Amino acid sequence: MTSILVVGSVAYDTVETPFGTAERVLGGSASFFSIAASFFVPVRLVAVVGSDFEQKHVDALAAHRVDLEGLERVEGKTFFWAGRYSYDLNARETLRTDLNVFESFKPRIPQGYRSSSHVFLGNIHPSLQGEVLDQVERPRLVACDTMNYWIEGTPRELRETLKRVDVLLINDAEARQLSGEWNIVKAARAVRKMGPRVLVMKKGEHGVLMFGEQGAFSAPAYPLEEVFDPTGAGDTFAGGFLGYLASVQGTGALDEAALRRAVVMGSTLASFCVEAFSLDRLLKLTRAEIDQRFALFRQLTHFDPA
Amino acid sequence: MTSILVVGSVAYDTVETPFGTAERVLGGSASFFSIAASFFVPVRLVAVVGSDFEQKHVDALAAHRVDLEGLERVEGKTFFWAGRYSYDLNARETLRTDLNVFESFKPRIPQGYRSSSHVFLGNIHPSLQGEVLDQVERPRLVACDTMNYWIEGTPRELRETLKRVDVLLINDAEARQLSGEWNIVKAARAVRKMGPRVLVMKKGEHGVLMFGEQGAFSAPAYPLEEVFDPTGAGDTFAGGFLGYLASVQGTGALDEAALRRAVVMGSTLASFCVEAFSLDRLLKLTRAEIDQRFALFRQLTHFDPA
Repeated sequence: MTSILVVGSVAYDTVETPFGTAERVLGGSASFFSIAASFFVPVRLVAVVGSDFEQKHVDALAAHRVDLEGLERVEGKTFFWAGRYSYDLNARETLRTDLNVFESFKPRIPQGYRSSSHVFLGNIHPSLQGEVLDQVERPRLVACDTMNYWIEGTPRELRETLKRVDVLLINDAEARQLSGEWNIVKAARAVRKMGPRVLVMKKGEHGVLMFGEQGAFSAPAYPLEEVFDPTGAGDTFAGGFLGYLASVQGTGALDEAALRRAVVMGSTLASFCVEAFSLDRLLKLTRAEIDQRFALFRQLTHFDPA
Repeated sequence: MTSILVVGSVAYDTVETPFGTAERVLGGSASFFSIAASFFVPVRLVAVVGSDFEQKHVDALAAHRVDLEGLERVEGKTFFWAGRYSYDLNARETLRTDLNVFESFKPRIPQGYRSSSHVFLGNIHPSLQGEVLDQVERPRLVACDTMNYWIEGTPRELRETLKRVDVLLINDAEARQLSGEWNIVKAARAVRKMGPRVLVMKKGEHGVLMFGEQGAFSAPAYPLEEVFDPTGAGDTFAGGFLGYLASVQGTGALDEAALRRAVVMGSTLASFCVEAFSLDRLLKLTRAEIDQRFALFRQLTHFDPA
């Protein structure tokens, strides 16, 4: 059966934006990813939290068909991140990162998860990402995130993992750093030579560029009148992207039309994410609202060639 | 008959990019605009040059059905601009601006130009833009450019001119400055209240957002492997946009489908402009090459909703 296995962080965030502050709210890449993907397929979460993790947050995830068998609870504190956004939300400063129980996280994949058809390797040590792949059977599709910290610090391990990845989702700065190419077309070609058949390059408010076997696809970010908190938008994009793809992908190769719709679905989910703090908007979202905004994306980008 | 009247600068530019330097090459907003628009309709140029303006540049413009009756020649030197681009082409530094004969430019519209169906007011003093409109009969469409210098320095005059404009083409920073709104959706609404029914917001390498009566339209910049010199890209966009629109617009209202194709056509022309110094690429361009790249834009942005 189609289902997504996601490995990543579940965290508490304290976020300051020009519009207010949210203290110790639910965050982490795997949280945003899971809720976004859960609108399309069942999600199996592998992450670690501390003894301070609240039951209401367990309940929130469980209520969205996120399987929590792989959510490890250990003595200590949950990963904590604090950050502050600039007045225009375009820059953010990390005020504090306490890895806590996440520091010694070793993903253990429950037996029942091993046949998952789709895998999302969140932004963790590339060797751990590889160990996750060692524990799963024959996923139809492996998608992966990473960041500057691993690109700089563990390039060899990252290269090994990338050989086993179908879709890499990173931002434009990371693609430039990973490839050593400034030009994004050249950067994309170099990254795709490392393994991933598809590179999804996230550009924040400037949208997404996907590079695949059939060339490039460009999708804008939805022009919102109120952006409240950008935290988690990239992970939410990934969840919408992979969730949609898993829900429509047959057993065959990556289908270009489905990949393009998946990019737009990712952008759709991300556009809701930024409307409120934490997962507040995503947890209240309905499939009807998603489909409505997806249709608006077509209105935003469509032109008749003649 | 359909034709575009353009008023703006014709200049000599010295441009330094990471790939080389071009000395005293043909530039100026009206030059780029005219050549781009000339692929679609006849263009009537109103500008001023000095006695140093070379015959080969007159010939280059004339060879592209640009009517030069309105190109005034006066004693002195042609407007000169020198600039240097950063290694990534994303920032540029003005090294020198010699207004020369452009300083006392007073656009005089030849009798034969006054019935032009479309008018493009290049980036000059807003009061001069208004005087141009006083001298034309009943244009079907008035498009306009401006810049931070006029937004700050002559806000009252600019507001008067904007009341008479159908389409304003400016970049995102200018739209924010003009409206006093950071959010681009709010900025667009505020600008459209000043007069223009359509705001075309240029975002350089991030493409274009058009705001009109039927909502927003987003088009990416074409992802090029080699960007050589961005000088003139915005003016070339405007020429492709308005040239295409003039070639298809009936006597009626602005047609949304045509406006969207015009945005893509502007982006198409701009993508050629940046492939070489000055107007070098545009002067060699063919209509077949334009149509081919226009089709690539559809491939780049199209997705099937289901």
